[in-house]
Amino acid sequence: MKAEIITIGDELLIGQVVDTNSAYIATKLNEAGIYVHQITSVSDNKEHIIEALGNAAQKADIILITGGLGPTNDDITKLTLCEYFKVGLRFDEEAYKDVEHMFKVRGREVTEVNRKQAELPENCVALRNKNGTAPGMWFDVNGKIYISMPGVPYEMKALMEDEVIPKLQNQFTLPVIVHRNVLTIGIGESFLAEKIAAWEASLANDKIKLAYLPSIGMVRLRLSTIGEDRNLLEKNVQRKINELQSLVGEFIFGYETDTLQEIVGKVLKERKQTIATAESCTGGYISHLITSIAGSSDYYVGSVITYSYEIKTLELNINADLLNTKGAVSQEVVEQMASEVRRKFKTDYSIAVSGIAGPSGGTPEKPVGTVWIAIATPQRVFSKRFQFANNRLRNIQMTANAALNLLRKDLLADKS
Amino acid sequence: MKAEIITIGDELLIGQVVDTNSAYIATKLNEAGIYVHQITSVSDNKEHIIEALGNAAQKADIILITGGLGPTNDDITKLTLCEYFKVGLRFDEEAYKDVEHMFKVRGREVTEVNRKQAELPENCVALRNKNGTAPGMWFDVNGKIYISMPGVPYEMKALMEDEVIPKLQNQFTLPVIVHRNVLTIGIGESFLAEKIAAWEASLANDKIKLAYLPSIGMVRLRLSTIGEDRNLLEKNVQRKINELQSLVGEFIFGYETDTLQEIVGKVLKERKQTIATAESCTGGYISHLITSIAGSSDYYVGSVITYSYEIKTLELNINADLLNTKGAVSQEVVEQMASEVRRKFKTDYSIAVSGIAGPSGGTPEKPVGTVWIAIATPQRVFSKRFQFANNRLRNIQMTANAALNLLRKDLLADKS
Repeated sequence: MKAEIITIGDELLIGQVVDTNSAYIATKLNEAGIYVHQITSVSDNKEHIIEALGNAAQKADIILITGGLGPTNDDITKLTLCEYFKVGLRFDEEAYKDVEHMFKVRGREVTEVNRKQAELPENCVALRNKNGTAPGMWFDVNGKIYISMPGVPYEMKALMEDEVIPKLQNQFTLPVIVHRNVLTIGIGESFLAEKIAAWEASLANDKIKLAYLPSIGMVRLRLSTIGEDRNLLEKNVQRKINELQSLVGEFIFGYETDTLQEIVGKVLKERKQTIATAESCTGGYISHLITSIAGSSDYYVGSVITYSYEIKTLELNINADLLNTKGAVSQEVVEQMASEVRRKFKTDYSIAVSGIAGPSGGTPEKPVGTVWIAIATPQRVFSKRFQFANNRLRNIQMTANAALNLLRKDLLADKS
Repeated sequence: MKAEIITIGDELLIGQVVDTNSAYIATKLNEAGIYVHQITSVSDNKEHIIEALGNAAQKADIILITGGLGPTNDDITKLTLCEYFKVGLRFDEEAYKDVEHMFKVRGREVTEVNRKQAELPENCVALRNKNGTAPGMWFDVNGKIYISMPGVPYEMKALMEDEVIPKLQNQFTLPVIVHRNVLTIGIGESFLAEKIAAWEASLANDKIKLAYLPSIGMVRLRLSTIGEDRNLLEKNVQRKINELQSLVGEFIFGYETDTLQEIVGKVLKERKQTIATAESCTGGYISHLITSIAGSSDYYVGSVITYSYEIKTLELNINADLLNTKGAVSQEVVEQMASEVRRKFKTDYSIAVSGIAGPSGGTPEKPVGTVWIAIATPQRVFSKRFQFANNRLRNIQMTANAALNLLRKDLLADKS
């Protein structure tokens, strides 16, 4: 089963927007056992879109299209599809109800422009878009499936997961593809590759492919295999993951779509324990990660962000002399921050960070990227110094991940 | 002058890597007045690459290719180009000197595999790659220019800037393209389109194209025009932007790559004023946005994140009775939060937010997505209720943007 992805939008061709939709769609199709043959980006131009559709249909069984479904005049995908299939528009009552609902919850009337969102090509099945006013569209014409989705990533993603993939799986007998992801933190890609070189070589015996996917201070290892017998494939992959655990288990923090904030949150919730943070260089980013998890109010009570010396003293009783002699980025200060926020907020755990995110503020002894992280637990306070690089936003993200990972290790060590 | 970009690599088609090269190349070409007609991603497959080259040459004058130039067996672009042009390989002494130098600085001998990097198709001109061992290649065949570059972004970028763009500008007389972006917030795409319908229609008189690019609670309007006289084009676009200002100026917060946190930060810095935040439902995200700006410590002193009733009382003196009668998500509470954090942290301004991010916690009177935002200034405290939808992360982002925008409006109103 071969697919082609067509992304539509002038913004892609002038380089204003990076096409992240294609990679997401390709990942989801691959997981479902559908091979992506080509990705094509074209402008909001009728003739060009029709040409791209025709070319794709010559080679692919499934053609997925994103973009150009908004309510404004520069959105021409729907009318272009009508012309391509030589059909007219019909008014879709169900789709209109969704549009109406979308406006109702925001306390607004449906405008004439938005009423048009419920006009769809006669030959399509509407796919419900729970996050926007433009429905997805599914066409089954001459043995080819055409799927049109909005270009707004979170609308497209929900459509792919809830509608498109299940419908494709329902319609076609697809090969079994098993993907498993092993998530590591605290070891660089090349060092990891060296440690697992022999294991990696052995994967071929089970026809398992490996990919290294690095991100902020983490490396995701993806094991993939294709076949017919799901049980067998899953058993083979699990055996290799067990081997990997014994090789580099200390760096593995989770699997699949796990995040550090989810793992930490789950443990705290189960144990009915609580946490607070005291952040300097991360400026609230650790709290943001923790509170991005639904239900985090069960274990997260609050934080202080102390960006100046004065607020460190006011909020966390950090001695002004200590700040002046040791500096805010020091073991002594960060450990006091952790102890103090834990005591003040009456929590079981706390995280504190202080560092130099950059680009300025570095010194020879404490260059940009120097970060101290402390964890306070019911038993102790401990801390660790990290040295990151000189990209401000990356340093903030690396610090937050390192902090959550220190806490995770302590929480799980407690358990055993 | 029309260009097509072809990116080569299996990793693109399984979604493992997002193709950022195309957007970069497209931006640079556009700035030089070259229009990108299509972007095509294909796998490391000889027949498919040859087909893509043939298709591109039928439509475009310039074909730019990235990827598949590494020294290993799965890198087949060079041999595929030889086959496409029906030529053999030659050994390029200059290119070899660069390879040798590259290894010498790392204290290594050139391996046989890397010696092959200096073998190039007979009909190409080598483009020096100062960051890697694979030279770029420039082909001028039957009036079409083909340019092959490595897929490693920083190698490709240096080649584009130092070699490709200057060589294209040298060879062709290129038109001038002018793009301007107008950033709006607080009005939906369709409402905005209705308000500016007549203005939008008038753009055709100046041959200006308009695109709506929506994101989290914002819509970016992009005006583009092409011609020969840069001054005239820029004057025309600026005139239309001035008209837009008078139509929907209240929703315009910036231009080009501006962000709310940058604009707000710049004003505070200029005036030597300071800010703090008291966050509930945003859990630190507003602070994160403010502190993502380098130099924000000049005006941002800190925040409290009060996720529980107890911490609201402890940190911000919010009366427990008030919390119990009015609820944490109420005008009274959010205004007290703003006043109190401003007083306690001795700042000129403060932002406070309290809301129901979801997915749970909603009631009939206060459904998920209900948010109160308050701003405290040296003169007054004011607040506004917002109703967002039911996606937790989006609600957090919408709230943060709305809060920064309320502050921005007040700061700029002060000015006049």
